[in-house]
Amino acid sequence: MALADTRFETRRRKLSSQLAAQRIDDMLVTHLTHVRYLSGFSGSNGALLVSKDRTAKIATDGRYTTQIAEEVPDIKATIARATATELLSQVTEGHRVGYEADFVSVAELKRLEDACPEGVTLVPVSGVIEGIRLFKDNLELTRLTEAAELATQALEELVAAGELRAGRSERDIAADLEYRMRRLGAERPSFDTIVASGPNASKPHHQAGDRLIAEGDLVTIDYGMHRLGFNSDMTRTFAIGEIGQLEREIYEVTLASQLAGVKAATAGTALVDVDKACRDVIEEAGFGEYFVHSTGHGVGLDVHEAPSAAQTGKGDLKEGMTLTIEPGIYIPGKTGVRIEDTLIITSGKPRIITKYPKELTVL
Amino acid sequence: MALADTRFETRRRKLSSQLAAQRIDDMLVTHLTHVRYLSGFSGSNGALLVSKDRTAKIATDGRYTTQIAEEVPDIKATIARATATELLSQVTEGHRVGYEADFVSVAELKRLEDACPEGVTLVPVSGVIEGIRLFKDNLELTRLTEAAELATQALEELVAAGELRAGRSERDIAADLEYRMRRLGAERPSFDTIVASGPNASKPHHQAGDRLIAEGDLVTIDYGMHRLGFNSDMTRTFAIGEIGQLEREIYEVTLASQLAGVKAATAGTALVDVDKACRDVIEEAGFGEYFVHSTGHGVGLDVHEAPSAAQTGKGDLKEGMTLTIEPGIYIPGKTGVRIEDTLIITSGKPRIITKYPKELTVL
Repeated sequence: MALADTRFETRRRKLSSQLAAQRIDDMLVTHLTHVRYLSGFSGSNGALLVSKDRTAKIATDGRYTTQIAEEVPDIKATIARATATELLSQVTEGHRVGYEADFVSVAELKRLEDACPEGVTLVPVSGVIEGIRLFKDNLELTRLTEAAELATQALEELVAAGELRAGRSERDIAADLEYRMRRLGAERPSFDTIVASGPNASKPHHQAGDRLIAEGDLVTIDYGMHRLGFNSDMTRTFAIGEIGQLEREIYEVTLASQLAGVKAATAGTALVDVDKACRDVIEEAGFGEYFVHSTGHGVGLDVHEAPSAAQTGKGDLKEGMTLTIEPGIYIPGKTGVRIEDTLIITSGKPRIITKYPKELTVL
Repeated sequence: MALADTRFETRRRKLSSQLAAQRIDDMLVTHLTHVRYLSGFSGSNGALLVSKDRTAKIATDGRYTTQIAEEVPDIKATIARATATELLSQVTEGHRVGYEADFVSVAELKRLEDACPEGVTLVPVSGVIEGIRLFKDNLELTRLTEAAELATQALEELVAAGELRAGRSERDIAADLEYRMRRLGAERPSFDTIVASGPNASKPHHQAGDRLIAEGDLVTIDYGMHRLGFNSDMTRTFAIGEIGQLEREIYEVTLASQLAGVKAATAGTALVDVDKACRDVIEEAGFGEYFVHSTGHGVGLDVHEAPSAAQTGKGDLKEGMTLTIEPGIYIPGKTGVRIEDTLIITSGKPRIITKYPKELTVL
């Protein structure tokens, strides 16, 4: 507990430093993911006030009196129904208070303005906490690695048990995989599990329907586990029995593209160049028009977060970021392939935390 | 398909009428739940513009070109990355355009303002679509009933299979129940499944942890299924083997309270009186201080929505609303009971759609 507390305090200290630089006295944190990131509190109602002098206050309602004392022993908690306005009422006169402009609704801002004490100014703030989250600390890297390893284990068990086979529905396979993740400690899937078979594999956002897996199908499984606040994200495409020449070809091209993307993903590389590394392989093989999405995204408290490896990506990769590399080829109405890993970026070779084999598995 | 379309059009027509009354020319709908409710579109990016003259426009991005044509055959779709600003750019000069103040963030409003054509005025709107959603139409009642029946079937199967028994962990029982719901057609649970055993049953918001179920426990299971956009919500408390006198007493009192609440839940009754009907039974039995939450809430596209049967509840129940009746008694650190049904309100006896038996089941 003490160790974890230090980490939350370290995160808050980073925020405090940024506040001082932006002439903000206190930051009112209301996005629950951010409340949890900065304090450890995991309840469904709460707000946090972090000040530039490195002090903090937290509030939740009466349902969580015991839980907040256990999870956040190092910050004084106020119990109130309207947590954000309660913390705002405790702010010192003359202070400039930042609020999360990307998460506070227009109606919520009105309530904050109505509750704002005389002489206190509300200031919209964007992207500051997201900027801190870009660089994962050791606790986050541990949690992300654990989630990825347990999710990988679930897929291994599914395949070993023969549950991925012709004659079963996409939905049943998704159910089996989610069940195995749940038993291994998942609180829920990171997102609705994708099991896309045969022609459905040509739709990048197909989920898991009633279609029965058939001999000769490619089956794309894109899934993740949410555990202790963090997410995993991995995609593998399997062959069911004997597949055709087109299927085999797009698998090999996608795999070569994915390996090129992983190779490119080192600290200092521009995000557009990581995307280009994947895209070039697919374009050279003549399938460029069928790679219809970007190459990857960060994974952390959100399953999709910064950075973005896209043709429009901005900036460079840096040590401590996470990134998925997930090229795909989708032949409309026919078939498709996607292969995805989640990486931790280092100054050298990236660390792949989704360790399921990538050579074509024929079941 | 044709039938469903008519229903979406009927919902939009209700919105159009309200817009006219509020001097709004067009409503920009961006909350995805509301986009789906009013059009049938279930993608993860989209916006809808409904006008007082009963016309509508919809926008999504290139990933959903095929899907939107299938799901929304009756509205012209624009394919664009920034869906809301795209629709806003199509508005006629001089129009007053409403936006969803409870869902649009301050940062999003800034983007809308920047994209707003000359002579068009943005107006915050709250609660109008929620007001229409309060009264469920036939399609919604069918979907809600189906979800509740399938979720009930999952619990029946779980109990029949002997999966709820001493020696198993709360987490494994939650995993089993979620797996059964998934196979029966759930896309996901409506919320993180609660399996609260022994002393954990004294925490209304306990989820499902590593504790092993023991002889003499009460086990509270509160769970739901999300399917085709709609949710179910039901709670039952089970006895594992021989339970103590206190456990038996609070079960009987909670059940009597729940039955009183169901009896009171007819059209025309004040929501505070439904709450009071439940609360009085528990208070008269001397357990008033242990009923620490409100009596119930609506269930629909959201698992918690209006109306609210609470001591602070406003207004009356009306025909076509839904309401849970879920009193509970929680003896801190010891044990607890909650029993919950979801009802459809009629002018006479409410229709209970969660049909699992409520007499004490001893396993």
